[in-house]
Amino acid sequence: MTQYKVPVLPGDGIGPEIIAEGRKVIDAAGERFGFDVEWIEYPHGADHYLETGELISEETLKELSGYPAIYLGSIGDPRIAPGVLEKGILLTARFYFDQYVNLRPIKLLEGVWTPIKDKTSKDIDFVVVRENTEDFYVGIGGRAKKGESKDLLEVKRTLYSAKFGLDIETDSEEIGYQIGLISKEGTKRVIEYAFDLAEKRKKHISSVDKANVLSDIYGFWREEFNAVAAAHPDVTTDFNFVDAITMWFVKNPEWFDVVVTPNMFGDIITDLGAMIQGGLGLAPGGNINPNGTSMFEPIHGSAPKYKGQNKVNPIATIWAGAMLIEQLGEKEAADTIVNAIQKNILDGKIKTYDMGGKNTTSDVGDDIARIIKGE
Amino acid sequence: MTQYKVPVLPGDGIGPEIIAEGRKVIDAAGERFGFDVEWIEYPHGADHYLETGELISEETLKELSGYPAIYLGSIGDPRIAPGVLEKGILLTARFYFDQYVNLRPIKLLEGVWTPIKDKTSKDIDFVVVRENTEDFYVGIGGRAKKGESKDLLEVKRTLYSAKFGLDIETDSEEIGYQIGLISKEGTKRVIEYAFDLAEKRKKHISSVDKANVLSDIYGFWREEFNAVAAAHPDVTTDFNFVDAITMWFVKNPEWFDVVVTPNMFGDIITDLGAMIQGGLGLAPGGNINPNGTSMFEPIHGSAPKYKGQNKVNPIATIWAGAMLIEQLGEKEAADTIVNAIQKNILDGKIKTYDMGGKNTTSDVGDDIARIIKGE
Ligand SMILES: CC(C)[C@H](C(=O)O)[C@@H](O)C(=O)O
Ligand SMILES: CC(C)[C@H](C(=O)O)[C@@H](O)C(=O)O
Repeated sequence: MTQYKVPVLPGDGIGPEIIAEGRKVIDAAGERFGFDVEWIEYPHGADHYLETGELISEETLKELSGYPAIYLGSIGDPRIAPGVLEKGILLTARFYFDQYVNLRPIKLLEGVWTPIKDKTSKDIDFVVVRENTEDFYVGIGGRAKKGESKDLLEVKRTLYSAKFGLDIETDSEEIGYQIGLISKEGTKRVIEYAFDLAEKRKKHISSVDKANVLSDIYGFWREEFNAVAAAHPDVTTDFNFVDAITMWFVKNPEWFDVVVTPNMFGDIITDLGAMIQGGLGLAPGGNINPNGTSMFEPIHGSAPKYKGQNKVNPIATIWAGAMLIEQLGEKEAADTIVNAIQKNILDGKIKTYDMGGKNTTSDVGDDIARIIKGE
Repeated sequence: MTQYKVPVLPGDGIGPEIIAEGRKVIDAAGERFGFDVEWIEYPHGADHYLETGELISEETLKELSGYPAIYLGSIGDPRIAPGVLEKGILLTARFYFDQYVNLRPIKLLEGVWTPIKDKTSKDIDFVVVRENTEDFYVGIGGRAKKGESKDLLEVKRTLYSAKFGLDIETDSEEIGYQIGLISKEGTKRVIEYAFDLAEKRKKHISSVDKANVLSDIYGFWREEFNAVAAAHPDVTTDFNFVDAITMWFVKNPEWFDVVVTPNMFGDIITDLGAMIQGGLGLAPGGNINPNGTSMFEPIHGSAPKYKGQNKVNPIATIWAGAMLIEQLGEKEAADTIVNAIQKNILDGKIKTYDMGGKNTTSDVGDDIARIIKGE
């Protein structure tokens, strides 16, 4: 019996409820495929922060870096100002573990309702590779008042270090500013990951940017993209301005195979992607460091208003769990989980409110686990 | 007979074809409502740039600033690197004339096909107020190599001046960076404009940001929003992260009345907005300086592959023309144009390919002009 140890951070809001179902389903797959997961629980999130003042410590991060994959519920709480938990836990983990790929399948499962007309599961089936450690997520910015001037910033990055000495003079009463940056190394590696993925799929890559306006940062992105593309002559490519791609996601999702995007635009277009694949309840994601510690999560938030109601859809989290065990090497078990999700949906009997049903979160987890075990 | 002088820049690609129809329709409205427009043509765009090396000169801009409203076709040409014409002409004009509001109605006309299920023209009827002179559009950024350090930037803004002295050290082989900034004055005025508009509509405002990650710039935006909101207790408000709002545009467009957004996010969500209102052929926009020179345009680009084919839909441009004459004070004529567009669509006989028809660009312009003149 193969043994895995997987750290699990249920997090806030509905996090514990959906993670419970994800664990249940992975445990069921383990029974069937002969592996066993020891779940190591971590308390990080809003309550832990309010009780102890700790977001997540360097020590905990170091401990977690001993594992290949972490299972994450959701982070965010209305009692705490926007950004504190998200940056202090979620983004800190993505950066600390250098999870430079945020992999988000946009796949409309059969039998799922999409708000888009005339499209079926054949039309909506692509993958977004979102850069996950650079761009406007590096967390550098500030404010300056009339007369003020000096500021010193340091980029919290693991890949390389960068220091910005910023000298601002303004005659505005006050300004707020934000800096985004991408590195040659950071851009190259995520684009290479995307091309490798495209080689295994339909061999088409769509790059996203706004090089016509944010020319400095995304002109650089295009150059790196072209350099990597030159080494993959069998993969066809196109460039998409981020504004335009939101239209094509809705109008012509069948055009896409692999979409590679800088971090911030990736954040935006994958929420839209989640919607066309049936909603946030159905959209999983993986924060991947192919040679280190990865982290899997539903892409939705902590939905505080549903907390404790056993009401929300656990499928995104269960699907993220399938990605997690695939990362651990259990490909067959992972495929079996995705197929079981598909079967639960096609059966159409046991489903949560967002899919037009009346069942609970745990009913859906039970059903998917049952399908896997063949009961 | 009232006389107006309106500078017109047909621009590139399909620009001249759609602008011809826009002029035709405004002229028809003039005949009926007793005003006359003298069109003053400007050649700026790709051909002019390739012939003379000039994008748009300070002298021309000064001359144009003598008029209340400019009519713009579309800018962009595949022979020229992305951004050169867009920044050198379109964005230069928006900044030079300090057109701080980019007003984009998202309205599904009756009889128009939308890719979104179960929504009618009653559900899709809101306005986006996009800030138009700040944020990541200020055009400051650059690159730095290992060992390099000094850079000096100056923000091209009309509202206030700002100077950034940037000192970068990095151990990355090369980085590309981009800076966005918003000012107190610039943020306040556009949010005030949005609240004034909401007062005349359904009294609800949705603000867009990503304050949980780009906290410096958009935390500042939220503060300014709250300050303006305090003066409008009768208007209800909500905050939306930009990623989430792309979902609601598709799933629940009926939630929105006035949406106010920083520049870059506004660019993205209004393309998505254009799609839900039936496509780019139907989406007009106004770049507005309420006390200066405004500029009206379809929000689509120059569609080079359709150039000279008399094929594309002129409705976005005609609708932008209605916004233009409303700005000149011809409210009744403006409403009449919009009603004529609606009638042309409901008649359903004369329409371009994107609406499932076989007619030409000029057929549609002719039909709308005919409806206005009551022939
Ligand atoms: C919660 C937030 C910080 C996060 C992000 O912006 O990346 C989320 O929206 C996501 O997409 O995972
Ligand atoms: C052409 C481009 C510079 C422009 C923008 O980014 O504002 C366009 O997309 C728009 O929305 O008007």
